[in-house]
Amino acid sequence: VPRTINVGELIDRARDHDPRAIARLISLVEDASPELREVAAALAPHTGRAMVIGLTGSPGVGKSTSTSGLVSAFRAAGHRVGVLAVDPSSPFSGGALLGDRVRMQEHATDPDVFIRSMATRGHLGGLSWATPQALRVLDAAGFDVVLIETVGVGQSEVEIVSLADTTLVLVAPGMGDGIQAAKAGILEVADIFVVNKADRDGADQAIRELKHMVSLGRREQEGPSWRQPVVRTIAARGEGLTDVVEAIEAHRTWMAEHGELERRRTARASAEVEAIALAQLRDRMGDLRGGDALAQYAKQVMAGELDPYAAADALVAGLADATAG
Amino acid sequence: VPRTINVGELIDRARDHDPRAIARLISLVEDASPELREVAAALAPHTGRAMVIGLTGSPGVGKSTSTSGLVSAFRAAGHRVGVLAVDPSSPFSGGALLGDRVRMQEHATDPDVFIRSMATRGHLGGLSWATPQALRVLDAAGFDVVLIETVGVGQSEVEIVSLADTTLVLVAPGMGDGIQAAKAGILEVADIFVVNKADRDGADQAIRELKHMVSLGRREQEGPSWRQPVVRTIAARGEGLTDVVEAIEAHRTWMAEHGELERRRTARASAEVEAIALAQLRDRMGDLRGGDALAQYAKQVMAGELDPYAAADALVAGLADATAG
Repeated sequence: VPRTINVGELIDRARDHDPRAIARLISLVEDASPELREVAAALAPHTGRAMVIGLTGSPGVGKSTSTSGLVSAFRAAGHRVGVLAVDPSSPFSGGALLGDRVRMQEHATDPDVFIRSMATRGHLGGLSWATPQALRVLDAAGFDVVLIETVGVGQSEVEIVSLADTTLVLVAPGMGDGIQAAKAGILEVADIFVVNKADRDGADQAIRELKHMVSLGRREQEGPSWRQPVVRTIAARGEGLTDVVEAIEAHRTWMAEHGELERRRTARASAEVEAIALAQLRDRMGDLRGGDALAQYAKQVMAGELDPYAAADALVAGLADATAG
Repeated sequence: VPRTINVGELIDRARDHDPRAIARLISLVEDASPELREVAAALAPHTGRAMVIGLTGSPGVGKSTSTSGLVSAFRAAGHRVGVLAVDPSSPFSGGALLGDRVRMQEHATDPDVFIRSMATRGHLGGLSWATPQALRVLDAAGFDVVLIETVGVGQSEVEIVSLADTTLVLVAPGMGDGIQAAKAGILEVADIFVVNKADRDGADQAIRELKHMVSLGRREQEGPSWRQPVVRTIAARGEGLTDVVEAIEAHRTWMAEHGELERRRTARASAEVEAIALAQLRDRMGDLRGGDALAQYAKQVMAGELDPYAAADALVAGLADATAG
């Protein structure tokens, strides 16, 4: 007997802070269940309130410890906090290397904290496609702050920026992060730099290098720009985390004054709508000629009978015909 | 006076090994020039011959040195070799950190070697969208081997696999690559592991760990599978590179015997056609209602009046109407 899911009731319960209802809603969006669209529609009127903080950095810089410390700092300020931890998954275990169980156990009994691990989309990082929907669940459930923690590999960083209001980039001394950062263009990702493990050798140098990078970056900008602060923390001892929260709040104030929050959120909504539309169109292309159209064009390209652009034209024309017919 | 470009003549000259014609054709596809489609169509009959080798790894493992050594090894075997070096670009310089000039100067005077640096697509890695087209230029120009070198950040690795027949993953001892590799799912990317700087401490351990990972991975596979070899090199001294070339040739033989080369190339052509088609559809969506449709839907999503799925439905419906009308 298939269980009937009462989406409206689930959302009411989630908004009453019932963690099981919240978890169930995230599962519904994560599994692309038949109720996904109903859930999305029912969430819409309740969204747009949460402050969304992205937190990224290389493996080993102390992301989980910092996330845990930030949860404590936001709780101390009276906020309800949701956490989406996007784990790299092993291609062979099929699951996350670090699960909910080992994460931030100190918050396990706090009803105003909700922590969820999300699998990555592929095997090489990248936020799950369900992450924006899970964020909407937590937003609708009334969390004041949602932290999205993800490992800093290229694509995840781009994606976290597209989701977050404010992005923290964590580095640690002696990990070559300075050079890495410059190479990877991490400057463009960060709203706030956090130098964690600041009791280690090389912390002062890392801070100097980052501040230098920030000053170089600013010269290239036009108009008023946010000066990315470099905050020093020792997350394992709880040091510096209130400074991070203050920097986040300063960034939020700056964004509000400069129309940047509106701009980022419009860009986020546009990207989300566009991605869903493109996924639909991709599915439709995949269905053309009983699912065989793309493979046939690919064979012609391989045989040198057709170039990829001509093949794409034919595919798009086929889609238009199918839609018209 | 606009210069007239004679695409047919350029391709004839490129096939006669004229490096300026090859460079010009790559520029035409890289700049998305008006001639892009004409070039793509004219290249098509001449493509499909080159062996495409991807080479990836973290910064510092010796990718450029290894690429240079492999060029020498392939040249010694009588092959013509093209290289596409995909550099991370700095968001502030707008250009590549390492340019053609400093790369592999020893091959600069060899007419049977062509080296080209490509910018990355975004600021955080990822192959340029033009990389598949540049590959088609080198293939049509009669290079027996094309090496694509890219820094190992998540998305680039995924993309290089989609382009290459054989992917080499380079690691170096003492860089924590073992653990990183496991986390990042690098096993799935690699056809061949290369432990470079094998005279360093920790080389034996790195090799042991990789072999252990390979043996664990194989147990999960069904059917005949390729056992990823782990090759030891000291690229700076030219050691081990012929072993790498032998491993590449063994992989090619194995792929041919198991229909894997055909499968990979079909997948590559499909992905390329699909990506071009989706880019076209994306452009068309962007043009709807004078370019304003997506922004309007995004505003409604932000206001909670519409959920992202309903907005995407409306956008796709608008696209169908525009195509029909």
